[in-house]
Amino acid sequence: MTQCSAKTRYLVTQPELHQFIECCMGAVGAQSSHGSALADVLVEADYRGHYSHGLNRLDMYLRDLKTGICAKDGEPTVGKCTVATALVNGNNLIGPIVGNFCMELAIKKAKEVGIGWVSAYGSNHYGIAAFYSMQAVKCGLIGMSCTNTSPLVVPTRAKQCTLGTNPISVAAPALDGDSFVLDMATSAVALGKIELQHRRGEKIPEGWGCDPNGKNTTDPASILCGGGLLPLGGSEATSGYKGYGLSMMVEMFCGILSGAHYSKNIRCWKETDLVADLGQCFLAIDPECFAPGFKSRMSDLLKMHRDLEPSEPGLCVLTPGDPERQHIAECEQHGAIPYHVSVVDHMNSVARELGVKLLPTNHTINP
Amino acid sequence: MTQCSAKTRYLVTQPELHQFIECCMGAVGAQSSHGSALADVLVEADYRGHYSHGLNRLDMYLRDLKTGICAKDGEPTVGKCTVATALVNGNNLIGPIVGNFCMELAIKKAKEVGIGWVSAYGSNHYGIAAFYSMQAVKCGLIGMSCTNTSPLVVPTRAKQCTLGTNPISVAAPALDGDSFVLDMATSAVALGKIELQHRRGEKIPEGWGCDPNGKNTTDPASILCGGGLLPLGGSEATSGYKGYGLSMMVEMFCGILSGAHYSKNIRCWKETDLVADLGQCFLAIDPECFAPGFKSRMSDLLKMHRDLEPSEPGLCVLTPGDPERQHIAECEQHGAIPYHVSVVDHMNSVARELGVKLLPTNHTINP
Repeated sequence: MTQCSAKTRYLVTQPELHQFIECCMGAVGAQSSHGSALADVLVEADYRGHYSHGLNRLDMYLRDLKTGICAKDGEPTVGKCTVATALVNGNNLIGPIVGNFCMELAIKKAKEVGIGWVSAYGSNHYGIAAFYSMQAVKCGLIGMSCTNTSPLVVPTRAKQCTLGTNPISVAAPALDGDSFVLDMATSAVALGKIELQHRRGEKIPEGWGCDPNGKNTTDPASILCGGGLLPLGGSEATSGYKGYGLSMMVEMFCGILSGAHYSKNIRCWKETDLVADLGQCFLAIDPECFAPGFKSRMSDLLKMHRDLEPSEPGLCVLTPGDPERQHIAECEQHGAIPYHVSVVDHMNSVARELGVKLLPTNHTINP
Repeated sequence: MTQCSAKTRYLVTQPELHQFIECCMGAVGAQSSHGSALADVLVEADYRGHYSHGLNRLDMYLRDLKTGICAKDGEPTVGKCTVATALVNGNNLIGPIVGNFCMELAIKKAKEVGIGWVSAYGSNHYGIAAFYSMQAVKCGLIGMSCTNTSPLVVPTRAKQCTLGTNPISVAAPALDGDSFVLDMATSAVALGKIELQHRRGEKIPEGWGCDPNGKNTTDPASILCGGGLLPLGGSEATSGYKGYGLSMMVEMFCGILSGAHYSKNIRCWKETDLVADLGQCFLAIDPECFAPGFKSRMSDLLKMHRDLEPSEPGLCVLTPGDPERQHIAECEQHGAIPYHVSVVDHMNSVARELGVKLLPTNHTINP
């Protein structure tokens, strides 16, 4: 391990990461195609700057495979289907295997009849929702994907967590490889943001979470100890019931429509002795079935917003997907993805236990 | 006109309202079926308690028909279509005629192939979005509808209004006529809420709107005079960029997909000398094409939430559609819809000009 300051980052290339994740997955008995699929999703998350959903989460996938609570091999299977819809049994496989299978099916249907809607049950954590919606974009289609998750969010007027952060991603192609990529939890913020402020000993803004009595709080500790996240919009006065409604909409499209676990029936976050049985939903739409010139109008809409005069000089107006583009540009500049030392060190300790070749720690930056 | 206190409400029955709206529409030359369709939507909005989208708006529809900026007769026409999708030209007809046509088509397709997605251009204001999503629910289907609207919302980090309040409604059937009915603007609040606080001379919570420099403000006047609404989530610190992203998603599904006007190209709110050319989108999904028992799980999800212990005693935890159910129960108790005196008086002054029989003002309540 290199000697380094608190701000030092390790630089790891995408092939190094990919191989590392595949080897770890192989060591716990996953099919090689499953290891590769997981590596695709986790590396993409980190490359886009969503570190909470990348290498940082490998641990969780490995644990679920090691304990056997998640299936090591097999393929998802199609149940009912029409030319435009399908119900898929994820057969308790890792989320990326289920997600790729479903999105591919949705894309195939969209190419045939303009739209494809695929719902899955028996799935597991699938990483960033945008990974799947962007697959549609690569085929010139509009994509959508959402998933239910373990209960962490407290509905408006309640004090108990009953809904997940239930993320939704919608992506659409524009000209010259540009795109609109919305990828958001329906909670005000992710749990990771609260944990980070807690570790720093800092207060949080009003509207992020509530205490065990359901009261808005600026103290991260009371959110983490029996409280919960607030839905997008925060308190009732600032329309938090809309975020609560959106979260329930995602639950309806995921758990309810597919017959998976839903709401409070989903295992708690970090619970490891129950099958997840998550529900997920995948949509692809062919814009060619609608007005000609979709990509050109999409580019115009993006440009119209990026060109807006900012309210704070120097803080550009962004469109959904732009923060990720900025992170990707940074990675390209380094030729690698920068990581907090602690993430790599932790994953290397896991790798040691598995007898897997460690991630390199000889390339660093001090930003 | 009856002598009455500031709290007096007129009680008007649904048939009285329906006939009144039809007569006003007839007086400005609308086809009788168009008058009837508009009456259906506006009466339903008031019945559900969305007074900002009911009788209160009749004026605007009448004006657009009188000036000829909106077409008085005709039918929408289907352009491209597949078994599961259609692009519809609204032919500049009133929104409810376009909306009913599109939703009926989406439902027909969903019954045939499990899903129907219909996009419309050349449309006009269509009233409450839930009016259309609920049509699907009446057929045992999941429904979705959204529309773009005149720019009133300021994107995160900007200071100019470029997006509408772009509402979205998603509705789903449960057992025994119960349902999930989400119907929300993607802005933190509607413009009407700001106007109301301004008239009362009261400050507003942080997160509702910004001043002409794009700064968060609690002064309704500065929002109304050159400022704008904030997207759901409020400021950047409380994830307002998610509401901004949702608003742009609705714009993508509406204006961009259908080839209608979009974003800043849409006429300003209350502008009357330009064609609206709004874009709208309608989706129906047949839950029978997915896991059996959808309605039963939906009911369980609703019950699970309604039964939650509230954080404030007496303030029940609600599910999307419950506030409207409470208002409907109040109307049923009165056998009529209660109206602010000023709304009825104003509409009666409009009716006098048109030579139409006035709304009754002899039934009142003083709550």
